[in-house]
This record gives sequence, structure tokens and C-alpha cells, in this order.
Amino acid sequence: MHKILVLGAGLSSGALVSYLLDHAGKGKWKVRLADISEEMAGQKIMGHPAGETVKLDAGDEDHLAYEVHNADLVISMLPARMHPRVARQCVRYGRHLITASYVSPELRELDEEARKKNVLLLNEVGVDPGIDHMSAMYLLERLRKQGAEITAFESNTGGLVAPKHDNNPWNYKFTWNPRNVVLAGQGGAQFLHNGMYKYIPYHKIFRRYERIYVLDLGEFEAYPNRDSLKYQNAYGLQNVETMFRGTIRRPGFCKAWDILVQTGMTDDSYIMHQSDKLTYREYTNSFLAWSPTMNVEDKLAEYTGIDKDSETMYKIRWLGLFSNERVGLRDATPAQILQNLLEKRWKLDPDDKDMIVMQHQIEYKTEGKKKKILSSLVYTGKDAKNTAMSVTVGLPVAIAARLIMEGKISLRGVQIPIHPEIYIPVLQELSEHGIHFIEEEGIPPEQSY
Amino acid sequence: MHKILVLGAGLSSGALVSYLLDHAGKGKWKVRLADISEEMAGQKIMGHPAGETVKLDAGDEDHLAYEVHNADLVISMLPARMHPRVARQCVRYGRHLITASYVSPELRELDEEARKKNVLLLNEVGVDPGIDHMSAMYLLERLRKQGAEITAFESNTGGLVAPKHDNNPWNYKFTWNPRNVVLAGQGGAQFLHNGMYKYIPYHKIFRRYERIYVLDLGEFEAYPNRDSLKYQNAYGLQNVETMFRGTIRRPGFCKAWDILVQTGMTDDSYIMHQSDKLTYREYTNSFLAWSPTMNVEDKLAEYTGIDKDSETMYKIRWLGLFSNERVGLRDATPAQILQNLLEKRWKLDPDDKDMIVMQHQIEYKTEGKKKKILSSLVYTGKDAKNTAMSVTVGLPVAIAARLIMEGKISLRGVQIPIHPEIYIPVLQELSEHGIHFIEEEGIPPEQSY
Repeated sequence: MHKILVLGAGLSSGALVSYLLDHAGKGKWKVRLADISEEMAGQKIMGHPAGETVKLDAGDEDHLAYEVHNADLVISMLPARMHPRVARQCVRYGRHLITASYVSPELRELDEEARKKNVLLLNEVGVDPGIDHMSAMYLLERLRKQGAEITAFESNTGGLVAPKHDNNPWNYKFTWNPRNVVLAGQGGAQFLHNGMYKYIPYHKIFRRYERIYVLDLGEFEAYPNRDSLKYQNAYGLQNVETMFRGTIRRPGFCKAWDILVQTGMTDDSYIMHQSDKLTYREYTNSFLAWSPTMNVEDKLAEYTGIDKDSETMYKIRWLGLFSNERVGLRDATPAQILQNLLEKRWKLDPDDKDMIVMQHQIEYKTEGKKKKILSSLVYTGKDAKNTAMSVTVGLPVAIAARLIMEGKISLRGVQIPIHPEIYIPVLQELSEHGIHFIEEEGIPPEQSY
Repeated sequence: MHKILVLGAGLSSGALVSYLLDHAGKGKWKVRLADISEEMAGQKIMGHPAGETVKLDAGDEDHLAYEVHNADLVISMLPARMHPRVARQCVRYGRHLITASYVSPELRELDEEARKKNVLLLNEVGVDPGIDHMSAMYLLERLRKQGAEITAFESNTGGLVAPKHDNNPWNYKFTWNPRNVVLAGQGGAQFLHNGMYKYIPYHKIFRRYERIYVLDLGEFEAYPNRDSLKYQNAYGLQNVETMFRGTIRRPGFCKAWDILVQTGMTDDSYIMHQSDKLTYREYTNSFLAWSPTMNVEDKLAEYTGIDKDSETMYKIRWLGLFSNERVGLRDATPAQILQNLLEKRWKLDPDDKDMIVMQHQIEYKTEGKKKKILSSLVYTGKDAKNTAMSVTVGLPVAIAARLIMEGKISLRGVQIPIHPEIYIPVLQELSEHGIHFIEEEGIPPEQSY
């Protein structure tokens, strides 16, 4: 009897486990779901005959080894820092592994040994990273086969709230890990624009966004991700003039978020004195110079160069950063205090739906003409459990798992899904689940300003 | 025969070694100067009968141990990261140690063992840290003895070029480690102002300077140092309402330096693509957005919000950041490229003189009245060898060494010079060498705005 071991029964495992159980067929495979909370695992398996649960502390190396050894395929939905440990056990016992996380340098080191052991360590199979790679490669390869020379590649993704539930002035709610959102951009960004490398320090990231338009959803902003050039070789885009990867928000978000960055509220490097005793007004004031004559609102507006009556200022006020409410967090960094406040203000309500928006913009030359193509994905969550985020992360992982179990993937070593034997069947099946891209012709670059 | 071992024959050892040789008397002590270059050591000893040299690689643990064991007192003028290694040997053999560097956490750990072994590890005995501690403590203790209640403490120091030689638009030349100047402020700053903790992220440091006036030298700017509260307890200022420590520059410096910070030129965290092939103009442009219509100068002015015809823009132009000169540095970070350029532009010529400026501003209450006192030091270098920086670093170290050799210091463990048995005789002798503070009455705070 074959066995798929799934590590982690968190939010993103829902769609994944459902799919694997649905496809377990008559004795094709068992799905063994391991979590530190066996109760949580049980809620996902729901007594399905092909399912089983096990309580597992992934830090328990012996137990982990035992579970890996007894499986045919391992799927790790654990926090990314735990993947190398899991991967080492997989290599040891010759088991394939799938994750939805970025390939870390530590994981990359296992490439040679994995190949020797005939093992596939497949990563970045979720959404950004995951569906972005697959859909980009699909489009790029098709254009290249048609004789196109790719000159510019831009790819943006965002996890947002669906328009119907988009009812706060930031046009944003948390649909995933809030900490990642608060710390986003730290470390700066770099990309390629018209043949020039461009570098942006953290404190300028949210002023350097692009304006994009996605299908009938209208206008968005996309601020640059850390290293847009990371996949230049993987995508075969060595000769491209422009390469940009960004994160999508609604218009106005970046300008307002920039104010929080400017003041220093996203700093996670030190603990504020007596943070629990501060009010949010005092918190805000602690980043501003002392003044005998100006109030906190005036000082913030002057310091960051915004109009007191602007939309941006309204967004800041709406968060409650001038309120006399207590912070109530002990030994907290500025970023932790901000996150705590945002988690109240940007909470996704149980009946809210989230939305994944992704768009590739590719410029290319074909038969002497410059052309541009846009390929966009908009996927809305079904409910609080089957969110767009959890489905778009879990489903491609699940499909890749099925393909591996059915022996349809010949790749070995540390991989990401940029190979047609993976991305073609995965994209095809995602599309059957309503996760599909719509292509449009864009305005060619020479007509675009 | 007693022996003082001096590790490091670099710039700051000149005044130090001279003093120690001058005071070696008839058989009082020998000065053994160790350096990786025995030739350099020889140039400092210059055949003095009380001096001797030794070639020492401080990484050679056995040789270092041997030298420490054979000395009565060790003075380390090595890079600060090497002090813990030296200190461990000093504790092992029961030898006292003096350094001019900040106490690192690693060094602080040796406190208990040093006390057990009856050893003094005396640090921060140069200038900022050093003379600032001593002069501040002297003044604070005198005021407290007079019954004053200290309410505010501000202390600023700068290494600058002397007015007579101050002939560039930045009013600044490198008088010490250029790398420290380029990276200054990274990590942000915090201080206390009128009872409120204030936090400043790196990218705002150079907009949050204070304006100060020093004796007949006129106006300066002081931007906040990393942690102004570091010495709050050491100075006995737990109840103070304002505590600020800063770095002194001439007016206009901070605003112009801020432009370099804003663009990202001081970033030391990544290597620029093909940095050797860039021109400075391309370097500057790589931080600015692509534009079909604007030139690099216009883009920089717009991006950073400065007037194209301003003094600030003139400073940037004068540096050559818009020139077509090649950078010519391989695999360099933005900060390294900037430093390389600045080392050409801000070079202290052989006949230039440098200047140390230090000022304490203390507000206090006495007999129900609010008062303010300013205490200022201006010390100008003699020549390219006896710079103000090297004398103000080396001389207090040398005087402290003499005091220890003469058995006049009873302190043990990891210490900084905030104790009267050190600072009183050191300050007195510094004053005989022309390093002395001038006190003035300041405008009391309630009349000051």
C-alpha cells in the first residue's frame, strides 16, 4: 500500500488533503497527516477511509525519520525553516519531497546527494512561488516556440480581499501571515529596467511602485520584490532588457504604507522602552521630534511631507495611530506593535472572501514587430476555510503529488516547477478547478507613454 | 625592569608611544611596541633607549600569550574585534589592559574573572569614547556636589577639518576611518527628549540633527548617535528628562548626506552588478527610476525633494556623482563605491590640520532656578602625524597607562573612565597638553525658544 505523508495540518493543508483523499481511489494510496495537534489533523481527514493521522513533533528527529521512512512521498507544509531537516531524511531514505516554499541555500546543498539517491526535492509549488513560475514558463515557452524574442518580463502577484468585501480605506485585509506583510521589503529590492540595473533601499520601496490594470478589476499598484533577477536564468531570460517582480496592492496603499516605513514603525530590530504602557498616540509620537507647538498629527504630516487633509492621512487616522488606546504589548518592537494593531483593523471577517491576483506582462519582438501580452489570474476564495490563498497554495502541491505518485515526473534533485512535465499537467488541472489565466494583447512599448 | 606592551603601531599610537617613552625615566619602564610590521614599530620608537620593537601577528595566539606574559601592562590599539582575544590573555596572566574602544559584550563577560585575578580591563579611554566620558563625569559630579539636580544632558563630538583648511563645499574631510563615516547611523538612533523616548530609523537620522554653537567657531549640526541612553546609568542620569549624544558636522552636511542615504548609496548589504564598468553617473542613475524624458540630475532632485539649484545639489555635483568617470571597483557594494569616491574628494592633504570639537550641554536646577552650562573642547592637530584625532585618542590612553604603572588606580574588572581616580588626573594632564574645556553659561531652557 502506497503512502503520502503530509507534514502540517495548518490552513494551507485543507485543499491539499481534500484533493489527495479524493484521488486516493481504491487502494491507490493512503494519506497520513502528521501534526503536533492530532486533533487538527483529524479535522482535515474527517474519518476518510484513505486517511490516517499521527501526532508528530517535527523537532523529534527519530520520529520524523520513522515517518519519512514509512512513506513513499513526503509533503512538507511546515514552516520553511524546517524543510532542510525534512529534506535530509527524505534523501536518506530515498523519498521524494514537495514543499511550497522558496529553495533555501541549505536545501540547495542537498541537490547532488538527492540526484545520487534518485530523489526529487520539488519546491516552490504553491502560489508565488509556484503558480507564477508555472504560468510564466508556459507563456514564455509558447512565445519562444512561435519565434518570439522576449525583451521584457514583469510579473506581479497579490493576496487581497475580494472587491465585494473590500470595505476599508486601505483596500486591504490580511489573508496570510501578517508578520510577512509588516516586514515586506526589508532588505531593499533590485530589478532590471530598459537594460539598467535598478536598486531600491527599503525606505524607498513603497514610492517605487508600478501602476497596473487587471482585467475588469481596474487599477492596482505593484511594489518591487526583493530580487527580481532571481529567476532570470531559470526562466531563460538572460537577454531581457526589463525584469520586474512585484507585489500587488490597491491604489493608495503604497503611499500610506510608506508613511509607516518613513517614521520607523516597521522596524523590528529593537524593543521599545515600556511598550506596554504606551498609547498608540505616544507610540506614533515617539518617532517624531519634540515640539512645543505642534500636535502629533501635524508633526507626522510635516515630517513625512503629506497633506493633513489627504486620503493618506485619513488611512493613518483610521488605523488608530493617533488614538489614546493602550498598546498593551510587553517588550515589543515597533513592528510587533504595528502588527498587533493591524491585525485588529485588517482582520478578514468569517464571511469575507479573499482573492489572489496575478499578472504577467511580457514584451517581445516577432517578425520585426514589438508586441506585448498580458496574462492575468483572478481567483476568489470560496469561504473562510477554502480561501483563495489556501487553495492556490495547496492545490498545485496536491496535483504535483499525484503526478509523482503516478510516476509521471522523471526530474530528480532540487527543483522548482519550471519544467513542462510538471507545469503543463498542473496548469491544466488547476484550470479545471477555476484557477486559470486570461490573456490580452497589451499596448506595445513604443506606444505606451 | 617593568614593561609596557603596546599592540599596534598605527596612526593612533604616535602620541601614545611618545608619551610613554618620555615618561620612561631612568629605568622606570620599557615600552615594547608590537606590530605585524616591525619597520612601522621602529619608526615610532626611533631608537629610544627605553623602547624596543617586536614583529607580532596578533592572530598568533602563542606569541601573543608570550608577549602578554612578559609585560606588566598591555595597551591594545588593534582593531576592536581583536580586543577580547588580548583581554583573555591579560586575565590569564594577571596583566592590566587599556583600550580606546567600546566595551563589547564579549569583553564584558570577562568582568568577573578579571576581578578574581585582580586585573583591570580599562576601555573607552580615547576620544568619544573617552574624553567625553571623563569631561562629562567631571562636570556632572561638580554640579551634583553643588546641589544641582541634572535635568538634561546633551553631548556632541566630531572629528572635522580645522577652519583654516576647511575649503570644500561639504566642510568636511576624512580625519579617521572613512568606512565608519560612510556607514554612520545604520541601525538607527534613540534618545530621550523632555521625558519621551524618541526613535529614529536610519533613513531619517540625517534629518533629525540639532543645531549647536561652539565657542568662536560658530554653528554646527549634531546628528543623533545610535543609542544615547547607553551611558544613562553609568553617568548617574536615571532621572534626566533629556539625554542626547550626537556627532558634529558643519551646517549643510546632514541635508546633503541625507540625499546619499535616501538614494541608497550607503547600502553595504549587496554587490552591484558589474560595478567596475559603471561610471559614477550610471551608479547614481541605478538608484533612480527610468525615465524617457528626465536626466539624472533632474531625477535625483525630484526623487529626494531638493531644489536643482540648491547648495545641497551643488555638494552632490561637486563629489562627481554625475560624472562619466569610471568607478573601477570590482564586486563592490554601493557603500564601497561611495567611500572610494569620497576618499578622493575628502582627502586630508599633508599640510591640512584636523580638529576635534566636543560640547556638553547640561541643564540643571539649583536653588529653584533652571540653569544651563556649556562645556566645549576644540583641539586642533599639529601636523599630518600628530593629528588632533591621534593625540586625543593616544594621550589619555598614555596617561592612564602611567597612572596604572605608578599604582595609582585601584579599580579592577571591566571599566570605563567614569571614576574620579582616573578622570581627575587624566583631565588635569590633558589640559597641560592643551586639551581643555571652556565653560559658558547657556540660555536656560524656558527662555530658549
